[in-house]
Amino acid sequence: MTRTVLESKTKTVVIGFDEPFCVIGERINPTGRKKLAAELEAGDFSTVEKDALEQVACGAMVLDVNAGVVYNSNPNPNETEPPLMRRMIELVQGLVEVPLCIDSSVPGALEAGLAVCQGRPLLNSVTGEEERLEKILPLVKKYNVPVVAISNDDTGISEDPDVRFAVAKKIVERAADFGIPAHDIVVDPLVMPVGAMASAGRQVFALVRRLRDELGVNTTCGASNISFGLPHRHGINAAFLPMAIGAGMTSAIMNPVRPVEMEAIRAANFLMNHDANGGEWIRFARVLEAVEAGTPFPEAAAAAAAAGGRGGRSGGREGRRRG
Amino acid sequence: MTRTVLESKTKTVVIGFDEPFCVIGERINPTGRKKLAAELEAGDFSTVEKDALEQVACGAMVLDVNAGVVYNSNPNPNETEPPLMRRMIELVQGLVEVPLCIDSSVPGALEAGLAVCQGRPLLNSVTGEEERLEKILPLVKKYNVPVVAISNDDTGISEDPDVRFAVAKKIVERAADFGIPAHDIVVDPLVMPVGAMASAGRQVFALVRRLRDELGVNTTCGASNISFGLPHRHGINAAFLPMAIGAGMTSAIMNPVRPVEMEAIRAANFLMNHDANGGEWIRFARVLEAVEAGTPFPEAAAAAAAAGGRGGRSGGREGRRRG
Repeated sequence: MTRTVLESKTKTVVIGFDEPFCVIGERINPTGRKKLAAELEAGDFSTVEKDALEQVACGAMVLDVNAGVVYNSNPNPNETEPPLMRRMIELVQGLVEVPLCIDSSVPGALEAGLAVCQGRPLLNSVTGEEERLEKILPLVKKYNVPVVAISNDDTGISEDPDVRFAVAKKIVERAADFGIPAHDIVVDPLVMPVGAMASAGRQVFALVRRLRDELGVNTTCGASNISFGLPHRHGINAAFLPMAIGAGMTSAIMNPVRPVEMEAIRAANFLMNHDANGGEWIRFARVLEAVEAGTPFPEAAAAAAAAGGRGGRSGGREGRRRG
Repeated sequence: MTRTVLESKTKTVVIGFDEPFCVIGERINPTGRKKLAAELEAGDFSTVEKDALEQVACGAMVLDVNAGVVYNSNPNPNETEPPLMRRMIELVQGLVEVPLCIDSSVPGALEAGLAVCQGRPLLNSVTGEEERLEKILPLVKKYNVPVVAISNDDTGISEDPDVRFAVAKKIVERAADFGIPAHDIVVDPLVMPVGAMASAGRQVFALVRRLRDELGVNTTCGASNISFGLPHRHGINAAFLPMAIGAGMTSAIMNPVRPVEMEAIRAANFLMNHDANGGEWIRFARVLEAVEAGTPFPEAAAAAAAAGGRGGRSGGREGRRRG
C-alpha cells in the first residue's frame, strides 16, 4: 500500500491509493501574478496570508509555496529567492496547520525552505534532467522528505506517454540509488491541453494506471492544464478530475477556491468509497447551498468549517497564530 | 470492436467502445409521474410530445419509450399496455429522428412496440430470470434487435458484484444459444445508491471493466440511481458519469434535460478523444453560456441546434412530421 506521508508541526496528511484525493493549493505563486510579484518584492505579504487562509478554508489539504519572483531591483533569483522562500514558509506555517509543498526551480530556495519548514513537507520538484537529479535527490535524502517527480528530462517533454513513463521510472530508480523509497516519489506524468492534443486525457489516465501498477507510486498533476485555451474550462476540469481519480490519480496541484472543481473531487471521493457515510459530501452540500444563495465560496466554506469544528485555525481571526 | 447498432428510419446510432457516450433519454415513462399517467389514460399525448422534442434538443441520442400505465378503467396492463405502446412509438418516431428504446415489463407491449417501430430499436429489457429469458430472447432473435440485459435473476438483485457479473454472463450465453451475438447485448450491471452502499461506485467501475474485457459487451445503467437519497444529487451524478465513462461504460438511461449531467458527459467525451477537435464541446459551451444568461436549457440547446444545422427536425414546429 503506497502511502506518502506529509506533516506540518501538528497535522499529518497521507497521499495514498486508499485515501481521499489530496488537494494541493496552488495559489501562493507569483508566476503570472504581477500584482503579487510586486507585493512580494515590496515585502507585502497580505495576499499570501489571504491565499493561505482561503485555500485551507476551501479544502486544500496541503499548500504549495512558490517564491519565484524576479525582482526589479535584483534579477538574480539565486540571490533573492532563498530568503523570500524562507520568509514565506515561516509566514504560511504560522497561519495554517496544513503541511506545505516547497516549490521552486532554484535549488537554493528549496534548501532554504527545507531548513525552516516544520514537519515533513513535499518538495516540488525533481525532473529527469541530469543536473536536477544530482542537485535535488541529495536534498530529498538529507531532509528525508517526499518529492514531486516531473516526467520530463534533458530532451524536454515528450508527447509519447511511453517516454514520459520511462522518465518517471528512471527518476524512481535514481532515487532508489540514494536510498529514497518509491512511496516518497509523487510522479507528475504531465497533463497536456486536450484542446491541443486530442489524446491528452486518455494518455494521462493510462499513464496514471501504469505508474500505480508498475512503479507503485502516487501521482499528481497541474490539473487545470487539461483545459488550457478552451471555453468553459471548469466543466472540463470537473470531468477530468473524477476520471483521473478513477484511474488512480492521488493528488493534484490546483486552485481549491473553485467550487465546481472541489465539488467534483468530493463527489469522486464519495464514489471511490473514501468518504465514510458520505459525511464530507453532506457537509459540502451545505456549503454549496450557501454558495448558490450568494455567499462567496471561501466564506461559506469557512463558516461551515467553524460550525463543524473542522479546519482548525483557518476559519477566522481568532484562529490565527500571527497576523 | 464491440458496436451495437441502433437505427430509426433515417438515423443510425452506434453504442461502442470508440464512440461518444450514448445518452438514452428516460423521460417518456409514466412510472412515478401521476400526471403523465392520467394524461395517457385520457389519450392526451402532449407531454410525450414535449418530452420527445426537449430530450432530443438537449442531446438525447436515443429515446426510451415506456407505456407502463395502470389504467383506472382497466387494471390489467397485459391488455392496456400493448396498444398504448404501439401508439406512443408511432407518435414519437413521427416527431423525432433518433432511434428508440422500447421499454416494458410486459412482453406483449415489447412485441407491440417492435411490430410498429421503424429501423432497429433497442429492446428494454431481458433479465436473468428464467421466464423472462424464455419470453424475451425469442423476440430479440425474431426482430433482430439489440437488447438491454439487466443483471438480476430469480434470486433478485445481488449485492455481490461477482454474482451480478455471473448473471450477465449467463444472459450472454443464453442469447448465444438463440444465435444472438454479444455485441447486441447491452448489460446494465445495476447501480446501487452510494448513500446506502459505500462500495456502489467502485463496484460499478470494476464491473464495467470486467464486462467489457471479459464479455466484450456494451453497458448501460440508470445513472441517477447512484445519488438516490443524497443532497445535491446532480453533483454526484456529474462525477459518476465521467468516472463510469472512464471505466468503459458506453451508455446510460438518464434525464438529458439536465445541463450539469450533460456537461459532464460532453466533457468526458472530449477527454476520451471522442470529440474531434472539441467541436461538440465548443458548441455546447455556447449553450451553457445561454443557460447561465437565463435561457432554459431545452430552448438554448434547440436554438444552438437550429443555428448549427444540427438536430434535424427536433428544433421547431416546421421540423415536425406530425403534430
